[in-house]
Amino acid sequence: MSSSGTGPAAEQELVGLDRILQAAELIAPYAVRTPLLASPWPGLWLKPENLQPIGAFKIRGAVTAISRLDPDVRARGVLAHSSGNHAQAVAYTARAFGIDAHIVIPDNASPRKVQATRDLGATVELVPLEQRFSRPAELVEQTGKALIPPFDHPDVIAGQGTVGLEISQDAADVAVVLVPVSGGGLISGVAAAISALLPHAKVIGVEPELAGDAAESLRTGRRTAWSPADTSRTMADGLRAFGVGELPWRHISTQVHDIITVSEDEIADATRRLILQARLVAEPSGAVATAAFLHHRDQLPAGRAVAVVSGGNIDPSVLRTLMADG
Amino acid sequence: MSSSGTGPAAEQELVGLDRILQAAELIAPYAVRTPLLASPWPGLWLKPENLQPIGAFKIRGAVTAISRLDPDVRARGVLAHSSGNHAQAVAYTARAFGIDAHIVIPDNASPRKVQATRDLGATVELVPLEQRFSRPAELVEQTGKALIPPFDHPDVIAGQGTVGLEISQDAADVAVVLVPVSGGGLISGVAAAISALLPHAKVIGVEPELAGDAAESLRTGRRTAWSPADTSRTMADGLRAFGVGELPWRHISTQVHDIITVSEDEIADATRRLILQARLVAEPSGAVATAAFLHHRDQLPAGRAVAVVSGGNIDPSVLRTLMADG
Repeated sequence: MSSSGTGPAAEQELVGLDRILQAAELIAPYAVRTPLLASPWPGLWLKPENLQPIGAFKIRGAVTAISRLDPDVRARGVLAHSSGNHAQAVAYTARAFGIDAHIVIPDNASPRKVQATRDLGATVELVPLEQRFSRPAELVEQTGKALIPPFDHPDVIAGQGTVGLEISQDAADVAVVLVPVSGGGLISGVAAAISALLPHAKVIGVEPELAGDAAESLRTGRRTAWSPADTSRTMADGLRAFGVGELPWRHISTQVHDIITVSEDEIADATRRLILQARLVAEPSGAVATAAFLHHRDQLPAGRAVAVVSGGNIDPSVLRTLMADG
Repeated sequence: MSSSGTGPAAEQELVGLDRILQAAELIAPYAVRTPLLASPWPGLWLKPENLQPIGAFKIRGAVTAISRLDPDVRARGVLAHSSGNHAQAVAYTARAFGIDAHIVIPDNASPRKVQATRDLGATVELVPLEQRFSRPAELVEQTGKALIPPFDHPDVIAGQGTVGLEISQDAADVAVVLVPVSGGGLISGVAAAISALLPHAKVIGVEPELAGDAAESLRTGRRTAWSPADTSRTMADGLRAFGVGELPWRHISTQVHDIITVSEDEIADATRRLILQARLVAEPSGAVATAAFLHHRDQLPAGRAVAVVSGGNIDPSVLRTLMADG
């Protein structure tokens, strides 16, 4: 499961449909087979991944990756570094498999997310931001636990790809699938599934303007990372990853049609309307694809659109503020 | 479809599994096959009917009843009287079938609900509260449109029973199913399905203390109606029906194990926790079954519980108040 075990990501094949179909079988006992919902906005359907256990699509990749570990390796437990939904997904899955999870979280993360991860039974280790990659590598050496990467791994991408597989099953006539982009695991999996099953449909990524590194990368043709000082300004805290991963970039640069950026006001408006009109509690990161449909329809191909509502772990104080402003 | 066409409800058979299975086929193109979600509260699963088009389970009964009309009758259009989710369900279904809907709404209903029904293309007629039954009867005579009753009809009950059918498919080991009670259509259908498919499981109704007519009826063995002056005090505005219907009473008195009441504070707490912790926007009426699990667990049988979250059409001002109070 560690990238050293499968070779550098740049040399890896793109994730194919066979791996996504296998992932669908692996996740069935753990993840919700989310329905496709007609939205209150004509022409848009919603894929509500906020309804997953732990409130985000991340459960799909974590279960796939942990399921595919060699049982002897898995028995030693798993490691992850994350300040967000991936941490909770790995902790939740480890508990379901009855194994240990050790999660490295930057010490500037919200106490609420730290507690949520601890509540799932994981050992949480807070480290300075600059040790978020080095400390997990040390722990792999010391403990023999398997590292579950948040996005740059074929098993994780295959797991997230089940979102695209399900969309293809429920909406064979879809013209465009809108997907939030951060490290790129979700959109890579969705693009792999949709390009195989519905080659006429377009997969379009959506980012906050304030974390628009993938949009810039696709425009220039070169994978670019923005600094945390820049990306930390967006309210979409799940989309602040410092550039897409290597394997995701290979999917994005070949299977994704476009990446659109949305403003902070548009993200807030979409989050509010998902709650009040679609009855779905989305976090701001989970609302960016809906924001693209509501505010940038001129940039989209005509026809039936699906927006992935990728997560619902909104901070209560943010939710209160959004409701008060509406 | 009118009750005169099938004989008085008191002489009718209970709704059986065959009708519910048929309803499942009829609703498949129109209603969402909602997933069963693990809740944040160990032991409780949620059936999120707030995710239906129009935001409530009512779509299931309306589609079933309208589908089963004779095509020549259906072509003349449909009538309904309701101030709430049933009005929107009939309007939505009529639009899907390309027929007229004429909805009679008491003139004290919220302007927001009136507008939502009009937005679905229905003709809305506002009448004084005392004409809410007489005016539809007149209209049946004058227009030949078919009346779609909100709960006291076997087709409507069969449609709502698909909620129970789906629960039995997704949770064969369920011990108790908690269902909001108003006119009794939903709990009748669920009890019919569960008693046929999972006879070991208990179906328990939940009402606000302030609209506890069904609980009183079950306790005394006599169907009782409370006055609007009493029931109007609950924040659960979807559960203010003036007693359960005749056919629902036959189901409730024979297939329902118990009816529990919950306080206004408990309803508010459950609504808030569904939003913040389960990421589901429920209306207060839709949260009563969850409130029973959270606050009256001592009154429930041991084992796996499912709460039906029956609807999500919460007034934005109520939602803001609940969030501010949390």
